[in-house]
Amino acid sequence: MRWDDGTLVLLDQTKLPDEEVYLRCESPEEVAAAIQRLSVRGAPAIGVAAAYGAVLAANGCREPEPGDFRRAVSGKLEMLRAARPTAVNLPWAIDRMLGVLDRVAGRDPAAQRAALLEEAQAIEREDVDACEALGRFGAELIPDRATVLTHCNAGALATAGRGTALAVVYAAAAAGKDVRVLSDETRPLLQGARLTAWECQKMGVPVTVLCDNAAGWILSRGDVDRIVVGADRIAANGDVANKIGTYPLAVLAREHGVPFYVAAPTSTVDLAVATGREIPIEERSPEEVTSPRGLRVTPEGVSALNPAFDVTPHELVAAIITEQGIAEAPYVESLARLVREGSGAARSG
Amino acid sequence: MRWDDGTLVLLDQTKLPDEEVYLRCESPEEVAAAIQRLSVRGAPAIGVAAAYGAVLAANGCREPEPGDFRRAVSGKLEMLRAARPTAVNLPWAIDRMLGVLDRVAGRDPAAQRAALLEEAQAIEREDVDACEALGRFGAELIPDRATVLTHCNAGALATAGRGTALAVVYAAAAAGKDVRVLSDETRPLLQGARLTAWECQKMGVPVTVLCDNAAGWILSRGDVDRIVVGADRIAANGDVANKIGTYPLAVLAREHGVPFYVAAPTSTVDLAVATGREIPIEERSPEEVTSPRGLRVTPEGVSALNPAFDVTPHELVAAIITEQGIAEAPYVESLARLVREGSGAARSG
Repeated sequence: MRWDDGTLVLLDQTKLPDEEVYLRCESPEEVAAAIQRLSVRGAPAIGVAAAYGAVLAANGCREPEPGDFRRAVSGKLEMLRAARPTAVNLPWAIDRMLGVLDRVAGRDPAAQRAALLEEAQAIEREDVDACEALGRFGAELIPDRATVLTHCNAGALATAGRGTALAVVYAAAAAGKDVRVLSDETRPLLQGARLTAWECQKMGVPVTVLCDNAAGWILSRGDVDRIVVGADRIAANGDVANKIGTYPLAVLAREHGVPFYVAAPTSTVDLAVATGREIPIEERSPEEVTSPRGLRVTPEGVSALNPAFDVTPHELVAAIITEQGIAEAPYVESLARLVREGSGAARSG
Repeated sequence: MRWDDGTLVLLDQTKLPDEEVYLRCESPEEVAAAIQRLSVRGAPAIGVAAAYGAVLAANGCREPEPGDFRRAVSGKLEMLRAARPTAVNLPWAIDRMLGVLDRVAGRDPAAQRAALLEEAQAIEREDVDACEALGRFGAELIPDRATVLTHCNAGALATAGRGTALAVVYAAAAAGKDVRVLSDETRPLLQGARLTAWECQKMGVPVTVLCDNAAGWILSRGDVDRIVVGADRIAANGDVANKIGTYPLAVLAREHGVPFYVAAPTSTVDLAVATGREIPIEERSPEEVTSPRGLRVTPEGVSALNPAFDVTPHELVAAIITEQGIAEAPYVESLARLVREGSGAARSG
C-alpha cells in the first residue's frame, strides 16, 4: 500500500499468490469497495487505507466554502466507516480524520486537504512503528527452536508495516531464533494458505500450511510451542474479535497448555466496548463458503453460514502484545494503561 | 454401491455433487484404487467394497488347485487390506473373507468363489441392517426441534445402508421430529459440503453448510443441540478415530455442554486396540490441502500437513450408538458387551 501522487495504490490481495496486481484507488468509493471485497484487509491496513480514502474524498471535493467542504467530506468519511463492521481500526482512523477536520474547520479547502494528508501519513507512519515495536516486545515470548501456529494473515499484508502476529515471528527470527510457522489455511478466503504462506516464503521463514480443522490434532501431538494471532477489535476486558476460527484455537491451546497470544497495536483496542459480546460480527456472503475461489462445491440450493469473525474470551488469552508493551490479565487495567500511553505517544510523535 | 452380475458398481464420490458417475470395478486392484482415491469412502462402505473386491479376486483367479487358488486369493486380500490404514472395517471385512477361505479350504475353486460371494452379500446385508438399527437407537437421543451438527459424511454414501450419524438424523425425522443439520464442510476433501449436503437435500432434511472453523462460534452462540459423527475405528476404551476435525468439535462440545455422540456399527470397534494412541492415522497427499478441487491456492513450494483423521479421547464422548444399542462410559465394558452381541447376531443372522 502506498500513496502515489494523489492515488492510493494497493496490492490486490484477492489475487495473491497467483498474481501481483496493483489497484489504483482515486476516490473514497473505490477505497470502500476495495475494503469490502478484501483487496485490502487486516485491521491496521484497513485503518490506513480508510485514512487515505478520506484524503481522496477531500481532494475530489469541489465545494469552495470551508463549511460546505467539511460537510461533504464528512459524509464520505461516514460512507467509508460503514464499509466493514468488525475491525475497530476503521472507525478509529475515521474518527482521527474527523478530528482533523474539526481542528481545521474554517480554513480553506486547500488547507483542510493538506491537514488530512498529513494525518493519513501520520497514521501510516505510526502503524509502521507500532509493528516494529510490538514485534520486538513479542519476540521475547518466543523461545528458540519454536513452532508458532498462526491463523489468517496478520503480517505485512494486514498492516502498513511488518505485521502484528507475523511481526513477532519476524522479530524472533531476526534476533537469531530458529522459528517455523504453521499456518492455518483459514477458510473461507484462505488468507493463511494464500497470504501468510506467500509472506513467510518471501521473508525466508519456513512455513507449512494445514487445514483449520487439523490444528487440534497437531496441538494434541505436542507439535506447537506458541499460538500467535492478530485481532480486529479488542474489548476493554481483553475479549478479542479476530478471524473466524480463532476462538476454537484458543480453547484447544488451553487444553494442551500452549500459550495463546494476541498481537495488535493499541489502535485495535476499543475501550468503548466493555466485552466481546458488544462487538459487531460481520456475516459475509454464503458464496464464500459454497464456492471457494469461485468454484462451487455444494449442491445448488444449499445454504451456508459465513460469520467472518469470532470472539475469544479474555480468560483464554495468555498475553496481548502491543507497541506499548505486553498486556496481561487483568486486561481491564493493563489495556487501559497501554492505550493511554499509546495515544500519548501518537500525540507527541 | 451394488453387485451387478460379477461387477462391483460404485457411485464415484469424488465427482459429487457435480456428476453422478458410476464406476464398474472388475478386479480387486480396481477396488483398491477406488478405496485409495476415495471414490468409495466411509468405514462401513470400505468394508463392504473390500469384501466384494475379494469376490472379484476369486472370480479372476485361474488356479485350478484348491490350495493354489486359496493362496492366490489370499494374496489379493492382503493387497486390499493395505489400501488405507485407519478404518478398521477394512481389515475386519478382509479377516471375515479369509475366515471363509479357511472354512472352505480344500473345496474346488467354484465352491470357494460361491462361499466368498455369499459372505460379501452377508456383510452388505448386515451393514444395511446395522444402519437401520443404530438409526433407531440414536433417534431416541435427538430431541424435537433439534439442530444437529455433523462432520464429514457419515450417511448413505459412507455405508451400504442409510448411514451412521445421518441414519440417526433420518430416523429422528422419520419419527416426526423436526431436525435440521449443520454440516461442517470438512476440508480438505469437502465431504460435508459435497456429500452430506447432497444426501440431506435428497432426503428432504434441511441442511446448512459451514466452514469447519466456524463450528466453535456457532456452538458458543447456543445454536447447536447435538453433535453426531461417525467413526473409522473405535478403540476398546472408547477413543474414536474419525475424520480430521472431529477432535476439536468434541472439545468445543464439552466447553458448551452440548452432547457429543458417535454413531458406528460394532464392526468399527477394534477390541484389539486398547486406546486411540495405537490407531494408525493416515497422512494423505499435501496437494489435497494446497489444491482444493485441483485448484492450487498456496504459493509454489509451500508444504502442507494432511493428517486424514484425529483421535477423540473417550472422556469427550457422551455415547456411542451401535446397532446393538447405546454404549456409555465405562466403554471398556459397554463396548466389549455390544461387540460380543454383534458377533453373535452376525453368526446367527
